[in-house]
Amino acid sequence: MIQASIITIGDELLIGQVIDTNSAWMAQELNKAGIPVIRRVAVGDEWSKIWNALDEESKHAQIVLITGGLGPTGDDITKPLLCEYFNGKLIVNEEALANVKYIFERVLNRPMIESNLKQAEVPDTCKVIQNKRGTAPGMWFEKKYRHASPEWKDLHEGFDSKQIFVSMPGIPFEMKGMMKDYVIPQLSKLFELPHIVHRTLLTAGVGESYLAEQIKDFEAALPTHIKLAYLPNYGMVRLRLSTIGFDKNFIEKEIEQQFETLQLLVKDYLVTNEDEPMEVVVGKLLAAKNKTLCTAESCTGGYIAHLLTANPGASAYYDGSVVSYSYSAKEHLLQVDHSTLQTKGAVSEEVVIQMAKGALKNIKSDYVIAVSGIMGPDGGLPDKPVGTVWVAVGNNENIIAQKLYFRFDRMRNIQLTATNALNMLRKFVLENR
Amino acid sequence: MIQASIITIGDELLIGQVIDTNSAWMAQELNKAGIPVIRRVAVGDEWSKIWNALDEESKHAQIVLITGGLGPTGDDITKPLLCEYFNGKLIVNEEALANVKYIFERVLNRPMIESNLKQAEVPDTCKVIQNKRGTAPGMWFEKKYRHASPEWKDLHEGFDSKQIFVSMPGIPFEMKGMMKDYVIPQLSKLFELPHIVHRTLLTAGVGESYLAEQIKDFEAALPTHIKLAYLPNYGMVRLRLSTIGFDKNFIEKEIEQQFETLQLLVKDYLVTNEDEPMEVVVGKLLAAKNKTLCTAESCTGGYIAHLLTANPGASAYYDGSVVSYSYSAKEHLLQVDHSTLQTKGAVSEEVVIQMAKGALKNIKSDYVIAVSGIMGPDGGLPDKPVGTVWVAVGNNENIIAQKLYFRFDRMRNIQLTATNALNMLRKFVLENR
Repeated sequence: MIQASIITIGDELLIGQVIDTNSAWMAQELNKAGIPVIRRVAVGDEWSKIWNALDEESKHAQIVLITGGLGPTGDDITKPLLCEYFNGKLIVNEEALANVKYIFERVLNRPMIESNLKQAEVPDTCKVIQNKRGTAPGMWFEKKYRHASPEWKDLHEGFDSKQIFVSMPGIPFEMKGMMKDYVIPQLSKLFELPHIVHRTLLTAGVGESYLAEQIKDFEAALPTHIKLAYLPNYGMVRLRLSTIGFDKNFIEKEIEQQFETLQLLVKDYLVTNEDEPMEVVVGKLLAAKNKTLCTAESCTGGYIAHLLTANPGASAYYDGSVVSYSYSAKEHLLQVDHSTLQTKGAVSEEVVIQMAKGALKNIKSDYVIAVSGIMGPDGGLPDKPVGTVWVAVGNNENIIAQKLYFRFDRMRNIQLTATNALNMLRKFVLENR
Repeated sequence: MIQASIITIGDELLIGQVIDTNSAWMAQELNKAGIPVIRRVAVGDEWSKIWNALDEESKHAQIVLITGGLGPTGDDITKPLLCEYFNGKLIVNEEALANVKYIFERVLNRPMIESNLKQAEVPDTCKVIQNKRGTAPGMWFEKKYRHASPEWKDLHEGFDSKQIFVSMPGIPFEMKGMMKDYVIPQLSKLFELPHIVHRTLLTAGVGESYLAEQIKDFEAALPTHIKLAYLPNYGMVRLRLSTIGFDKNFIEKEIEQQFETLQLLVKDYLVTNEDEPMEVVVGKLLAAKNKTLCTAESCTGGYIAHLLTANPGASAYYDGSVVSYSYSAKEHLLQVDHSTLQTKGAVSEEVVIQMAKGALKNIKSDYVIAVSGIMGPDGGLPDKPVGTVWVAVGNNENIIAQKLYFRFDRMRNIQLTATNALNMLRKFVLENR
């Protein structure tokens, strides 16, 4: 089995200044191509640590993908290190040089300086991966795969067992371009790769352990080459079946049968049988019914709108939001009654229903979600502690409201409110055609 | 030097289904406490891979922190593995059992099942870290530090060189509670830790390599124990100085002097001399002037509102937003002229200025940001390709508009639009007191 390890380089990862989103994206793409990722390692901008990581990961995996550390500045030492690691010397790559010049002259419209020219230098022991989206070229190194097992050699008879190292910039947009245009296609050409199949469903309204109890016989009877995983998040649980094999038709059929059984077992809690977040489920539902949605958000501050509009094509089913953070915005944009605000408070059933009605009237959509709550850390009241939220969903005929309570930090309370409000709307739409 | 390595366990990390935010948070907290993180490793839910990671990371670092794999379901094998790794046997921890019962009875209000009771079992070779926020207890293991160097032993004379392994749940909220309440305080008690000092500033309007050229003499003259890092993001560059040492006063004074010099060198591009994102800079600026802001967002779909309201206390300076995704929302909530929309299109200087005026009038704030653009992947026009954005910022006296162009994917275009629009407002506020 061809496996990959991902090395991410940069001090910013080790002091927690930056969250590593590259590795997750790379892992997804490699999986789709039939290359399981077995380890992900992050190390700092330090010579011995990077060298050591290359040594170690090349024992774990036949493909080692490296991101980061290729900038034009002094703290980026990956390129000279790779040059030494692969016994090369730095030479100017003419195509990369032309690209650097083009980017500065045509795209950035900025003067180019010495250090930018150096970005076109690469070790003479690598194949250059041109960077269509930035100045630092990628590097592809091959060497003999020292750790190939006898079984591996049997399986790949006549194949010169190569080990691949690829170095790419840490800037996500640039790395993604190289992965899609070059790295994945090259790896697929070089190795005979298996198929990896995942099927994921999303449940709501039931805990992980209760779900496990419901499906324990199913789980026990699963063939050993099919793995079941529980992925709880935002008070919901995703279940994922995974398998790997060379006979694509067979494994797809096999996992499909198991997945259908699983769906039946959890049908009371099933939200979707695709690996997609709640906002995409809601978007698809609205699009299928040719209906539109608007929102009136107080405590979530535009997060529901953001979730919906982060998806391409959202304008087909989403009209907009009033983020009514202030009393004035609630009164002027949603016609919430001043006296209701005064007597009941912004976080109340009455106000959230008025917000929903105001949004429906002004934005003229088919459905509405309105939320008002206290996300913390401050602002709690004796009868309305931090985490109290009122949610209303509905249409022009009918609006229902529900009080929710979350006990987390501000950001998580916002996320939970958004996801649960979207789920409330989903159920409303399904029940009120 | 006491260093830490973080092991994250879970297949979901290796197939890219989940982005690891735990490690970044843990790294931040450990850094603050004087414990540099030297490696972060992610492995799947597989016995040999986890075992191997424990072996390897214990050679790299004296403190090994583990998250994930402690759920109540069958795919979570970390606890039995740790039990075997540390030669223990599983016993019921009464305090943990009481906690599981309490959470099910009082918090979740759900029936408890067999597998939940098992969560109260722990290896008898660990100290139990009680979980105040969930059902899975944490585990603290100690053993002799086999890899202590002679220098280390000299430095820590008389100290029994311990190696620490801590296992915590992968759920961020639960892990954070354990880290803050127990792990960090215990480590600080057990080891004499140095101080780590970072100073970070943010620049805008200048490229990484140009910046490096401007400060190359400063960089060359830095003492070797102070590190300079370049962190480019969203078309802006953060610069970070870092150092470590036991004499807190000395290193703070030393880094402060260097940081002041650095600020002077980049003063033309300086946004903030704190490690804070643009939206926090803008929020602080508005709060200091006792002014409020509203937004009118089309293409960013509520993302600017979300960035601002993710910060506690945002209601002091932020009133709300109209997310006018549809023409109807633009016309009804922002009084954008129907004929202007028809003749100029939604992505135009005229419309974005009308959106700004409409928001100011209806939401009644001091300042406004309005954005309208095409974020992609679809919707581009010959004269307005994907990535074209009009931004307007201003107040009741004056509104200025600017056309921007981004060439990335939808999410990144949204982020870049938001950050650049906030920066435009920041400059407007500074120039128009």
